[in-house]
Amino acid sequence: MKPIMTAQEVENLIHLGFETPHKILSIEEVGCGSVRTRLLFRENMLRPGKIVSGPALFTAADLAMYALVLSHSGPALMAVTSNLNINFLAKAEPGDVISVGKILKLGQRLAVMEASMYSSANPNVLVAHATGSYALPLNQGKT
Amino acid sequence: MKPIMTAQEVENLIHLGFETPHKILSIEEVGCGSVRTRLLFRENMLRPGKIVSGPALFTAADLAMYALVLSHSGPALMAVTSNLNINFLAKAEPGDVISVGKILKLGQRLAVMEASMYSSANPNVLVAHATGSYALPLNQGKT
Amino acid sequence: MKPIMTAQEVENLIHLGFETPHKILSIEEVGCGSVRTRLLFRENMLRPGKIVSGPALFTAADLAMYALVLSHSGPALMAVTSNLNINFLAKAEPGDVISVGKILKLGQRLAVMEASMYSSANPNVLVAHATGSYALPLNQGKT
Amino acid sequence: MKPIMTAQEVENLIHLGFETPHKILSIEEVGCGSVRTRLLFRENMLRPGKIVSGPALFTAADLAMYALVLSHSGPALMAVTSNLNINFLAKAEPGDVISVGKILKLGQRLAVMEASMYSSANPNVLVAHATGSYALPLNQGKT
Repeated sequence: MKPIMTAQEVENLIHLGFETPHKILSIEEVGCGSVRTRLLFRENMLRPGKIVSGPALFTAADLAMYALVLSHSGPALMAVTSNLNINFLAKAEPGDVISVGKILKLGQRLAVMEASMYSSANPNVLVAHATGSYALPLNQGKT
Repeated sequence: MKPIMTAQEVENLIHLGFETPHKILSIEEVGCGSVRTRLLFRENMLRPGKIVSGPALFTAADLAMYALVLSHSGPALMAVTSNLNINFLAKAEPGDVISVGKILKLGQRLAVMEASMYSSANPNVLVAHATGSYALPLNQGKT
Repeated sequence: MKPIMTAQEVENLIHLGFETPHKILSIEEVGCGSVRTRLLFRENMLRPGKIVSGPALFTAADLAMYALVLSHSGPALMAVTSNLNINFLAKAEPGDVISVGKILKLGQRLAVMEASMYSSANPNVLVAHATGSYALPLNQGKT
Repeated sequence: MKPIMTAQEVENLIHLGFETPHKILSIEEVGCGSVRTRLLFRENMLRPGKIVSGPALFTAADLAMYALVLSHSGPALMAVTSNLNINFLAKAEPGDVISVGKILKLGQRLAVMEASMYSSANPNVLVAHATGSYALPLNQGKT
């Protein structure tokens, strides 16, 4: 399960997709079947009570999995999230959301992954854990 | 499973929490164990390809479930999402996200709900379906 | 979403697969995008405390979804469960497990369904709710 | 997250609950926040095609999580599965089902865990992955 794109290449590709001037996501590391990403903190990620919101943690998980698929299947791929299950485990203090993603299965039609989320404000606490499936388009890459 | 707050009361309460000048969510209907909400369209809900993003659909599902808990358990409640599982079923064309939420279980410690999401641009197509659990604080309401 | 097999045909097909002398599952009704099944009670479905076990409820959900796919896609199909998410909502008293299944999406590669489970001993109580995805083999039916 | 029961104690306790003469589950290892269990092979775990069935893998995941809760919270506990999400990743060849379980969160009211399943016939292939929540009864242990 060797990656075929570097962290920088994945980051550039995702940045292009967002069409925003500022950077949203930093890809810190791409490994064999793994990735480490950082969703950069913005005020609108907080919900009442000054904790990182559920949708922000979902976004972090979804982007980490997207980075996993891209880095291991290549830029031609238009993968789409098919299922995502997320457990919220602890309050996430304001900060970047660090996600550690891991491939569980990389099939021809479906990729299944997990992601563990942490806040940079308290990086020892697992704040959320997600598993997700991405549908992969046919007739790509390996044909 | 009778509601104890009106649609307008729930909408006001949620609006207060967001601290935004513009309205984000409209509560269209509160029924017995059910709710119908509308997440108002904004450009930043779109992802490349001009379809409503996964995080926006997640947000719609999460808010519909939050509205369900509030309307049936009352304003004192500080419920937090514990688990959310979402299946993405079809491309969501740009528009408001309409969610139909239903209570599956309203226990003393846990509420379990489902939500079905549609785009106002094509309201006959089910674009996503979610189930979720919310942890309810102790010593509230029924004591 | 019209079914293409009758309840009796689906039941016979599933019974063949199990290779057991006794009947395990009864298909009570096949509708448009829906199915009603009954997992027949057996002592080994109980867990300590004399309630129907989680694995038995999972089995009921999985078989209801399998019956849904079969009845709407035809007997040639070898669908396999890809993901199943189940919420346990109430104690299930000893009895048959009645499942009401519904198709959320029937795509070319993936079917997504939900199933609501009840015990025949207390058929008004929703004891579990599941959503699941089944991978469909390629080059079937619609080609 | 230190365990408070040994592997043997957990195995004995679970065996008592099942009221079967033969052993169903072997607890191979209890660690800090982790457990390794083995669901012993029986013919009725197979489904057509001679692969281990979904319900058998679900049972393995559920028992591994139950062993995790027991070993880390003690024998007085009557935990019940609240939610279980399982992804089926590869065909499981006939054999014991080995589960590696890990605690993601051990709160006062809810334990969240993950379990990875392998077949002893091919122990290098991850055949299924599950995450689950268990509701913990109040006023136990830590009072």
